[in-house]
Amino acid sequence: MATANKYKVIGTRPVRHDGVDKVTGRARYGADTKIQGMLYSAMLRSPHAHAKIKRLDTSKAEKLPGVRAVVTAKDLPDPGTRIAQLGEGAVCMAHLTRNVLAREKVLYKGHAIAAVAADNIHIAEEAVKLIEIEYEPLPVLLDVREAMKPSAIVLNDDVRCEEVGAGTTGSTPTNVAKHFHFEKGNVADGFAKAKVVVEREFVTGTVHQGYIEPHAATATWNPDGRVTIWCCTQGSFTVRQQCSELLGVPLGHIKVVPTEIGGGFGGKISVYLEPVAAALSKKSGKPVKLVMDRAAVLEATGPTPASYMKVKIGVDGDGKITAGTAYMAFDAGAFPGSPIGMAAMCAFACYDVPNGSVDGYDVCVNKPRTNAYRAPGATNGAFAVESVIDEICEKLKLDPLEFRAKNAAKEGTRRVDGPVFPRIGMWETVDYLKKSEHYSTPLPKPKFGGKVGRGVASGFWFNCGLKSAAFATVNTDGSVSLSLGTTDIGGSRASIAMQLAETLGLTATDINPNVVDTDAVGYNDVTGGSRVTFATGIAAYEAGEDIKRQMVQRAAVLWDVDPSQVSYDVATASLIGPGKNITFKALAEQVNHCGGPVIGRGFSSEANQGGSFGTHCVDVEVDPDTGKTQILRYTISQDVGTAVHPSYVEGQLQGGVVQGIGWALNEEYWYDDKGVMRNASYLDYRIPTIYDVPMIDTILVEVPDPEHPFGVRGVGEVPIVPPPAAVANAIANAVGVRMEKLPMSPPNLLKEILAGK
Amino acid sequence: MATANKYKVIGTRPVRHDGVDKVTGRARYGADTKIQGMLYSAMLRSPHAHAKIKRLDTSKAEKLPGVRAVVTAKDLPDPGTRIAQLGEGAVCMAHLTRNVLAREKVLYKGHAIAAVAADNIHIAEEAVKLIEIEYEPLPVLLDVREAMKPSAIVLNDDVRCEEVGAGTTGSTPTNVAKHFHFEKGNVADGFAKAKVVVEREFVTGTVHQGYIEPHAATATWNPDGRVTIWCCTQGSFTVRQQCSELLGVPLGHIKVVPTEIGGGFGGKISVYLEPVAAALSKKSGKPVKLVMDRAAVLEATGPTPASYMKVKIGVDGDGKITAGTAYMAFDAGAFPGSPIGMAAMCAFACYDVPNGSVDGYDVCVNKPRTNAYRAPGATNGAFAVESVIDEICEKLKLDPLEFRAKNAAKEGTRRVDGPVFPRIGMWETVDYLKKSEHYSTPLPKPKFGGKVGRGVASGFWFNCGLKSAAFATVNTDGSVSLSLGTTDIGGSRASIAMQLAETLGLTATDINPNVVDTDAVGYNDVTGGSRVTFATGIAAYEAGEDIKRQMVQRAAVLWDVDPSQVSYDVATASLIGPGKNITFKALAEQVNHCGGPVIGRGFSSEANQGGSFGTHCVDVEVDPDTGKTQILRYTISQDVGTAVHPSYVEGQLQGGVVQGIGWALNEEYWYDDKGVMRNASYLDYRIPTIYDVPMIDTILVEVPDPEHPFGVRGVGEVPIVPPPAAVANAIANAVGVRMEKLPMSPPNLLKEILAGK
Repeated sequence: MATANKYKVIGTRPVRHDGVDKVTGRARYGADTKIQGMLYSAMLRSPHAHAKIKRLDTSKAEKLPGVRAVVTAKDLPDPGTRIAQLGEGAVCMAHLTRNVLAREKVLYKGHAIAAVAADNIHIAEEAVKLIEIEYEPLPVLLDVREAMKPSAIVLNDDVRCEEVGAGTTGSTPTNVAKHFHFEKGNVADGFAKAKVVVEREFVTGTVHQGYIEPHAATATWNPDGRVTIWCCTQGSFTVRQQCSELLGVPLGHIKVVPTEIGGGFGGKISVYLEPVAAALSKKSGKPVKLVMDRAAVLEATGPTPASYMKVKIGVDGDGKITAGTAYMAFDAGAFPGSPIGMAAMCAFACYDVPNGSVDGYDVCVNKPRTNAYRAPGATNGAFAVESVIDEICEKLKLDPLEFRAKNAAKEGTRRVDGPVFPRIGMWETVDYLKKSEHYSTPLPKPKFGGKVGRGVASGFWFNCGLKSAAFATVNTDGSVSLSLGTTDIGGSRASIAMQLAETLGLTATDINPNVVDTDAVGYNDVTGGSRVTFATGIAAYEAGEDIKRQMVQRAAVLWDVDPSQVSYDVATASLIGPGKNITFKALAEQVNHCGGPVIGRGFSSEANQGGSFGTHCVDVEVDPDTGKTQILRYTISQDVGTAVHPSYVEGQLQGGVVQGIGWALNEEYWYDDKGVMRNASYLDYRIPTIYDVPMIDTILVEVPDPEHPFGVRGVGEVPIVPPPAAVANAIANAVGVRMEKLPMSPPNLLKEILAGK
Repeated sequence: MATANKYKVIGTRPVRHDGVDKVTGRARYGADTKIQGMLYSAMLRSPHAHAKIKRLDTSKAEKLPGVRAVVTAKDLPDPGTRIAQLGEGAVCMAHLTRNVLAREKVLYKGHAIAAVAADNIHIAEEAVKLIEIEYEPLPVLLDVREAMKPSAIVLNDDVRCEEVGAGTTGSTPTNVAKHFHFEKGNVADGFAKAKVVVEREFVTGTVHQGYIEPHAATATWNPDGRVTIWCCTQGSFTVRQQCSELLGVPLGHIKVVPTEIGGGFGGKISVYLEPVAAALSKKSGKPVKLVMDRAAVLEATGPTPASYMKVKIGVDGDGKITAGTAYMAFDAGAFPGSPIGMAAMCAFACYDVPNGSVDGYDVCVNKPRTNAYRAPGATNGAFAVESVIDEICEKLKLDPLEFRAKNAAKEGTRRVDGPVFPRIGMWETVDYLKKSEHYSTPLPKPKFGGKVGRGVASGFWFNCGLKSAAFATVNTDGSVSLSLGTTDIGGSRASIAMQLAETLGLTATDINPNVVDTDAVGYNDVTGGSRVTFATGIAAYEAGEDIKRQMVQRAAVLWDVDPSQVSYDVATASLIGPGKNITFKALAEQVNHCGGPVIGRGFSSEANQGGSFGTHCVDVEVDPDTGKTQILRYTISQDVGTAVHPSYVEGQLQGGVVQGIGWALNEEYWYDDKGVMRNASYLDYRIPTIYDVPMIDTILVEVPDPEHPFGVRGVGEVPIVPPPAAVANAIANAVGVRMEKLPMSPPNLLKEILAGK
């Protein structure tokens, strides 16, 4: 499916540079940080989902021998109410500091209240039990629709509803922090032209990113006021910025050293432990390590929102969409900041919808503050929109891929939320899938005695650009060291090194990529938004161009000619001058003696991506007696732009689909009516295992992004968007039940099957 | 003495950036490196000063439980015979590998032979005892004159005498590796014009740099062939280069992470432990740490050479030098590479010598391979030349400073070894000293019942330029992170950060300097040759200029004007445009949104320093009954160019003088006739204590170096050059005995006093 490869390095599959470190256990993750004299620490977390803190007394804990410091919210300054961008979201500092350590109230079970640093973890845990605290329990709100009612108890006194777009803000405290309204064309006219109109309501539960590595942070607060923080984060510069504001320390006094990171998927952008570890270090005068256990990760970091959605779509007799509306209310969790805005942007983006509107609501409830999770918000929306489209196709007896090809957004299509698409590959993903062996093959016979069905669904993610900087130095053996400031979650050392290699005409192994600390590279936004291989790739490309210019100058010195007479030949990685040439490697040996060390720098600041689309096809077998759904076959067709390292692209597609299947079929936070998550472990929170998913087939559709020198598009997020809808459509095809709720777990599905009988 | 300060930051005395780390014990030195799963190791060292290795069997050691690897020279490849520059010297790889681990022979007591890595240091030490080795002892050569005799046993079969300059090389094996011959004018004619000619012979003993921190190296050899080395070194890039050749690993596969360094003075440029730790790591599959004890440091690292010198100087009736010759034979130790070439360059450099010659010999003896030690070679030569000049002044009844003022080298003077001086400050150092309170004050009365005397002496060090690169990024709070590749031995974080601050119009604390690893900054030569504040300073200045250009561009984007309409005002650290201005700090907050991150890079490649001069005056009191010399008062007048941080400049001057006093009065390797150093500990090897030296008064003579944008000159090395001669001249003045041997320790001096009676 790939386009003929016009590149030497891009499109090949070298071993990743960090591979050996990862498979030999030598890679150092967050909890592996060890500093001489380091203290260990534990946290007091709320047993209540909603309560006032009436009294908090840490004096007994402080007196326990071996305890070196206890911190509460009183040890953090008031950071003000500035709204900080997080890459894929935003957060108000007044809320972030309260999320890090509760102040007046606790707003969810597991909410951090205090932390103890001690000589070892056992003393720290013992001391936590000695902290005296008195709560005044408050009513618990877990459902967005309940929380939106005027009669609902308000979680945060300072929250007023912001009407985004209108630019107005309400005057009374509310749980509804934001309302997005996007509109295009004339919706009423559009529906009037429709032959079929379907409107359905959907709900989805809270799910977690399910990264393997729990959060971990170690901090040293030096007596000169300089703070060093080691942590597993998606954004070392974001941690620096947030800690600066939360700790009241000048930004330049903080160095964040990113460790390896065992997954993030959007959940490791906000700080949790970092400011607390730093405050403990300030108070104790020692380095302090703070690590979460799995229950804390599930209960107190940022999962993706539960949601309530109502979607209505009209289609005319030609099978063309005439209008669509969506109403979406998202859990923000304890503090505002759900990805509802992004959900609203993505909801109808796969299609040319002439008349449409989207209303989105960001609603506080007594759950942990939600965070980004792989294409945040888009999966919820796609579950609703793609289910409705499937039902319409069924009603109109249209092939669902034919329908999508006919209605696909293309270059020039204007989205309901405004922007006009540049060159994109939505139509191509449908076309490649339509021609695939999978889609051309009839449904298989049941394997387990159940009923089989096939479903398709599409999805969109807009892919961020944001800021990246990179820095590269030429070694005298002709290798190039590359310093990166975007942490490597999904193979970006390799994908960026390959772009630098391509730029210079070298091999991937000639480049030695390193993820470095915040002092050592220049500002980088987070690893998120599927932006790193795109934007940091541009920065590396620019650094390569900078190196080429310098190599030309060095060769000119060597040959005693004017630089204008020298050119860089990428095909041979050589400098060519009047009657002379020298390879990059040979010149690298000599640069220190003909002009000096060669240092390249580059950044990406203005480039924006065109967005990425995927269309999926899944065959399922449903056991109508138990409600269990087995995935029999799955094919993903995605516009991946230029696939820099096809194996890693395939891995991203497969990983996204597997997470989407987990979300579709099993994953959910089981809350009791007190707001206590009853399945806060990986024994009970069921992510897919190898028994739950087949090998995912991938079709890499390469529609180069014209904004990138090599046509790179982000690929990591959109693969999670269609799976819940595709699986729902397949279930409908198998057993005739249209699921309007996630997860479509055996009990949930069986209930619908039984109700349908 | 300082010139009126035209700078904002340069010339001030801010607290050093690494100060708190150093005084709180948080700074991490070589032995502080701890890696998960790390092994500890110990070395087998030769008890003989010269022997063939007949048999070496490590099998019993390998079988000891807990032993993970044993390495000998067999585990290192043949690195070939390339000569590598070390910054202040050169080394043949065939010799360096044999110095790291002996092959056919051991050439000095303490010569490393094998190393064991084990689960703990006790097992490693136990295993070393299980290594079986059989020696064939050979005659021991300790004296250069003995070693130069044609009948002497030859240490290295591959050494032939290279006639430097003539370009010829002898054909027979010899201990004389090199002969330098420099000549200017007509020596015979010169001496013919002299009124007084004095010729004397001098010997100096082996002395050690006496750095506080022993050598330490930790290495990880990854299964993918990439090697990381943590070590306390003066040159991380030099370690990388040497390890690459000694281990047969591509240079780009090695990352050297420099730790803090507790002194070097030239002695931490060559590798000793680094390749051995790496080889142990390769063989064991684990990280390996290897640390020297003090005895190994003294016996088996590179002290400065013992020497034999004969100097002859003629002076006419006007007190002008007419001719001078010097014959200098230096201990190279076990392998060629003494600083004899530099000694020959410096010998007569303080003076305008119209006719002169210098012959220098690099001679192998059975001592550890010598290394650079603060102005390597120059101190030996100055002891001889300045003693002879003092004797001439005495004979001619000339004031020794008047003599030096009259004969001082100046801009345009050609040295005996060829180069013509640019603007230098030799004359000024004499002039300032002459006008000093110290020199104008009569000798004090004896304080301890002895005899008092005053001596003066001058000295020269040429100061290297070499290559440096630096990298700086602008943080959004307006601070600037500065990445440096030259390890900070003497305050260079501060002295370089101050130059960047000056360039940008910021304060020293706005700059956050970091010493980073070899992947992260671009090639840098060693910290040595008094080059870092000069050359890395230029690199930082260039990085600052690069930042200024980018800030101008960002302001132009912000104001939507052409960059040519914007200028950078250093005085206010502001950007000024048409009717607009914005401070650096305010713009820094916005750069990511008006053009992108700001990253500056710079390098210094071509700049060469003009050299540095010092003239010293010392008052001593000699106890004629014991031969003990007490320093009563000491003043150093030195051309320091522009003193970037005067406190650190003063510290360099004082530190150099103290080391010179130790060398003058006490320090020496006490060898027995078997070549065993009998005082290999700091109890027995006597470096000066606080009781041995008064406060050293400093006169900072600021003659800016025109090759540097701020006029910086290296200041660290020349202060050690005059002290032995100055003290010798003071002793002669006190007791009438001209010492021709270092150290002038009580027994040595008493012998001469008694002989003179």
